Amino acid sequence: MARKVYIDNIPLEQALEKFMEALQKKSYFVIEEEEIETAHAQGRILSQAVFARISHPHYPAAAMDGIAVKASMTFKASERNPVKLKLNQDYIEVDTGDYVPREFDAVIMIEDVNFTGEYAQIIKPAVPWQHIRSIGEDMTAHDMICPAFTEIGPEEIGSLLTAAVNKIKVVKKPVVAIIPTGTELTSYGSEHMAPGEIIESNSRMLGGLSTSWGASYIQYDIIPDDKNKLREAVINLKDKADILVICSGSSAGKEDYTAELISEMGEIIVHGIAIRPGKPAILGIIDNKPVIGVPGYPVSAHLVFNLFAKPVLYRKQKRSLPEEDHIICKTSRKISSPMGVDDFIHVNIARIKNEYIAYPLNRGAGITTSLVKSDGILHIPRGNEGLNAGDKCHITLKTPRQVIDKSLICIGSHDIALDILRDLLFSRHNIRLISNHAGSMGGIMSLLREETHFSGLHLLDPQNGEYNLSYLKKYLPQKKWLLIHLAKREQGLIVKKGNPLNIQKLSDLTNPDIRFINRQRGSGTRILLDYLLKQQNINPELINGYNREEYTHLAVAAAVKGDTCDVGLGIYASAKIFNLDFIPIAQEDYELCLLPDLLSESQIDLILKVIKDQDFIQKINLLGGYDLKETGHIRYEN
Amino acid sequence: MARKVYIDNIPLEQALEKFMEALQKKSYFVIEEEEIETAHAQGRILSQAVFARISHPHYPAAAMDGIAVKASMTFKASERNPVKLKLNQDYIEVDTGDYVPREFDAVIMIEDVNFTGEYAQIIKPAVPWQHIRSIGEDMTAHDMICPAFTEIGPEEIGSLLTAAVNKIKVVKKPVVAIIPTGTELTSYGSEHMAPGEIIESNSRMLGGLSTSWGASYIQYDIIPDDKNKLREAVINLKDKADILVICSGSSAGKEDYTAELISEMGEIIVHGIAIRPGKPAILGIIDNKPVIGVPGYPVSAHLVFNLFAKPVLYRKQKRSLPEEDHIICKTSRKISSPMGVDDFIHVNIARIKNEYIAYPLNRGAGITTSLVKSDGILHIPRGNEGLNAGDKCHITLKTPRQVIDKSLICIGSHDIALDILRDLLFSRHNIRLISNHAGSMGGIMSLLREETHFSGLHLLDPQNGEYNLSYLKKYLPQKKWLLIHLAKREQGLIVKKGNPLNIQKLSDLTNPDIRFINRQRGSGTRILLDYLLKQQNINPELINGYNREEYTHLAVAAAVKGDTCDVGLGIYASAKIFNLDFIPIAQEDYELCLLPDLLSESQIDLILKVIKDQDFIQKINLLGGYDLKETGHIRYEN
Repeated sequence: MARKVYIDNIPLEQALEKFMEALQKKSYFVIEEEEIETAHAQGRILSQAVFARISHPHYPAAAMDGIAVKASMTFKASERNPVKLKLNQDYIEVDTGDYVPREFDAVIMIEDVNFTGEYAQIIKPAVPWQHIRSIGEDMTAHDMICPAFTEIGPEEIGSLLTAAVNKIKVVKKPVVAIIPTGTELTSYGSEHMAPGEIIESNSRMLGGLSTSWGASYIQYDIIPDDKNKLREAVINLKDKADILVICSGSSAGKEDYTAELISEMGEIIVHGIAIRPGKPAILGIIDNKPVIGVPGYPVSAHLVFNLFAKPVLYRKQKRSLPEEDHIICKTSRKISSPMGVDDFIHVNIARIKNEYIAYPLNRGAGITTSLVKSDGILHIPRGNEGLNAGDKCHITLKTPRQVIDKSLICIGSHDIALDILRDLLFSRHNIRLISNHAGSMGGIMSLLREETHFSGLHLLDPQNGEYNLSYLKKYLPQKKWLLIHLAKREQGLIVKKGNPLNIQKLSDLTNPDIRFINRQRGSGTRILLDYLLKQQNINPELINGYNREEYTHLAVAAAVKGDTCDVGLGIYASAKIFNLDFIPIAQEDYELCLLPDLLSESQIDLILKVIKDQDFIQKINLLGGYDLKETGHIRYEN
Repeated sequence: MARKVYIDNIPLEQALEKFMEALQKKSYFVIEEEEIETAHAQGRILSQAVFARISHPHYPAAAMDGIAVKASMTFKASERNPVKLKLNQDYIEVDTGDYVPREFDAVIMIEDVNFTGEYAQIIKPAVPWQHIRSIGEDMTAHDMICPAFTEIGPEEIGSLLTAAVNKIKVVKKPVVAIIPTGTELTSYGSEHMAPGEIIESNSRMLGGLSTSWGASYIQYDIIPDDKNKLREAVINLKDKADILVICSGSSAGKEDYTAELISEMGEIIVHGIAIRPGKPAILGIIDNKPVIGVPGYPVSAHLVFNLFAKPVLYRKQKRSLPEEDHIICKTSRKISSPMGVDDFIHVNIARIKNEYIAYPLNRGAGITTSLVKSDGILHIPRGNEGLNAGDKCHITLKTPRQVIDKSLICIGSHDIALDILRDLLFSRHNIRLISNHAGSMGGIMSLLREETHFSGLHLLDPQNGEYNLSYLKKYLPQKKWLLIHLAKREQGLIVKKGNPLNIQKLSDLTNPDIRFINRQRGSGTRILLDYLLKQQNINPELINGYNREEYTHLAVAAAVKGDTCDVGLGIYASAKIFNLDFIPIAQEDYELCLLPDLLSESQIDLILKVIKDQDFIQKINLLGGYDLKETGHIRYEN
């Protein structure tokens, strides 16, 4: 089993510089132009300066509605001695924009004229050339309207058409050819997938990024892991495209032909870059065209494409890279980072007490939702070991500040009701809710550190069987907080449809043939489980899978459904969603704890309003397993 | 001659509020949705929350290249007692992303395995579920990926396709129907225009704005001033469009049927708004659809469309209006404003000594180039009389800060060479040059007030016949400045081709049948003229047109060409461009005066580099009438 694992580890800037220099040497960045209609040029970049072809106005034009006169005939006009002018002899009527013929040299406003039949009476002399727009007042023929490399917007279109410039030379849109490769890939239309099949979605994401950078893109069919087929694709595309992107196949797995092929057909400039994620990226050149091998993991592909394709595409079009907005944040937790790499971490950002806090998202390179949720990117440069909780850091913003400034964050236990709350807050009130699943104890800790506006909690107190209150009183005795009831919900064992293993009670879990899946430590469900196990004298060590953890109710149900386990503890709604069986174990209180010091009164009112809304209640009722009699009730105010 | 001049003067916010309320009452803002392919949804707005249709991964997947094993078989592995596993029995090979079948529960990295034939040797125990991505690690089926009204970007496309969401419901793109109206209008393809004909370019500008706000647009043919034809157009379009825009025809000129038609077919909400420009705008409703009558002047049309169509279109799509960037500037000169209106003024902005200065652009409502040049809009609210020079003001930015921060400004005399300098600075060095024609004395004043980085000057000292130096020494004795020679150029009388009036010398201008056009006071050319007239004892009062002023050499030539005058004083190049005759009068020095205190060394070097560049020299030589022997020579350093 021979595998090549010899990829480099070149620093980021050096990799980019080498790539750019190599392309420069091949005269890759020479501007290519095409002529297009001005009317359809929005967003395009001029390749040459543009000059007016006619003057505007191209004739002396009335600047007012009124009459055109010969000024010298009015010089003696006064209230006592009005001057009388005859139509079509001494004056003509003109509207704004009308031509003022050569025999006239002034326009008098309609308001200053008294008409009697065909006579106009004037009581004030006109100054020569008054209210006449001179030829070229806006632009003179041959005036430069825009220098080369101006981006054409609606205003430029208007002005250029006015200047009779109906066609313009613009920079050709670079074409990005994207070749997805991998025998495991299946195109996104397919409905039923075997285990091991992966939906190919990277090419559409990279295509979308290309579009937003002014390029167009060609999406090629999926190429299986076959070097010859990949070679054919490259040969097919290399004359049609300005940049080739081979998606996946850039790491050192056994089926990775990309690097081999690039070095056979051209040259590899860099293979292996000291970045995380995205290390196995390839930068190469075939026939004077850049070729980028991006790793298959979407988050890696996204980063590599941003770091390398973006600057190439901008420079190819002679566009300046758009200005980035940066923000200084406090990190919500320790973030470790290997010394040797430039590390890029997607984060959520909320503003709490006028301070911005960055919450790192799941760092897995396969987590597409981290790209969707991301408010910005935290870049930890090489030579740093990471950040401690509370350290200041610079974030490159993706979400506009105005959105962040009015975002709410809820860290704590996950419930599907929070998604419904998130949807309603955003669609009705344009307030974004960041929902971060850290378990109930994680929520308590975030409340304590004032790093969340509110938390979802379901923490059973084994002493009295009561939920949440005793924990809050213990951990947050000095703080102001509001405890709002959201729902009573059923917890139980989620098992396969028809319950083939005949699981009936918790003690059945000690059967070593039954594969259990647990929730993470600190989650309310885990605390509930441990309480019940203790109560029933069941030794957790005897449960097969007690140490295997998932983070949400839906993930537990998905694992049962996908047969990576046989049973898990979770809420009724998630069993129902996946069409699984459910053995009730307990009913619990799921509540929200709000910190009034971190929220405005109107924010608190809004949260209460949405929670009490019939739409909210109805949508949760549809999920099943919820008792909503007390929803919105303020149970305690500290 | 009956004209209706009874339009209102309603305050801006009140007009917008009345319009929005009226539309709201007609249920205009109810969301309309359509289903489209996710892959082509970039830039669209979700009309409903979207939930994952499958989990990702949808199977337990290897997170590393390596081997899949049963963890329990490796528990006893150590360096001393390696565990030997047999291929396809105890282990299988897996690449990243591969399915890990049910019989295995851990993946060991390739680097930690020693292969001998079909045996794999392990020296470290594997932890159950290590290096396996669990089902739904990214997203679980039924997870909410995006709430309603999220804007779809490349990342959302990637994530939704991964979630097997191949189609989504989005907000329908509103359709803007634009109807240009006016008998004087001609469509922009036409090459030869009679005096009085105007190129219709507003509709493309407004269409471009609509596009940038997420709408699409229909461009209708030009309708002459005929109420029935306009009615036909409205009937044709009103079911196809979500908003009707009638361009021009909204003032009180004699051919303005727009208001009449709207009130016949529907209702007028507002006619006449206390804004400048754009007062005669009409806001109406026909059949539950908004109708906006925008004035014909392009700057007015642009403002009215921004103030009224933009908020309607954004709200119709449930988009938030994009965040605007504001900047505090010092005004370069007094700006008067009528008390009763909200006044909007386009300005250029440069940064000088860490202060932003706003330079008002030509305020004419017909000046399309002011929209192209504009860096931002200064809004002077009702109840203010304007600003004094040096007053602070808030500007809504159009040009990004980073572009403004590295812009250079040159206020002073105009020469075509400055356009060439502007083109080269921008296209080669990405530095924008703002060129402001204020005449040579205007340039001196701007240098004195440190409101310009440099100035173009050609000021004759009548005492010694020398150019520029004596003025600078007199007005800027204490300041540091550099005087750089740009060109010697020929000034002379610009007359019609063939010189039909046989003008030979300055004294010919006293012939009352010869129509002269002058340059503005303070311009070098005016100073030259006055010097020569005095020298030759010619009384300016005897010159027909001595008081009629133009601001550039090209404008003077355009006036001669367009026969609004017979002769003007200007440079050879502008006569040549317009194919006119030229009678030489004088050769003068056109020079640049730079203020080193306002420029970095590298900026000065760059200006000198471009000026000395062969490309620059060649382009000016082509214009004719320039002597460039000393171009780039630093004549004096103060």
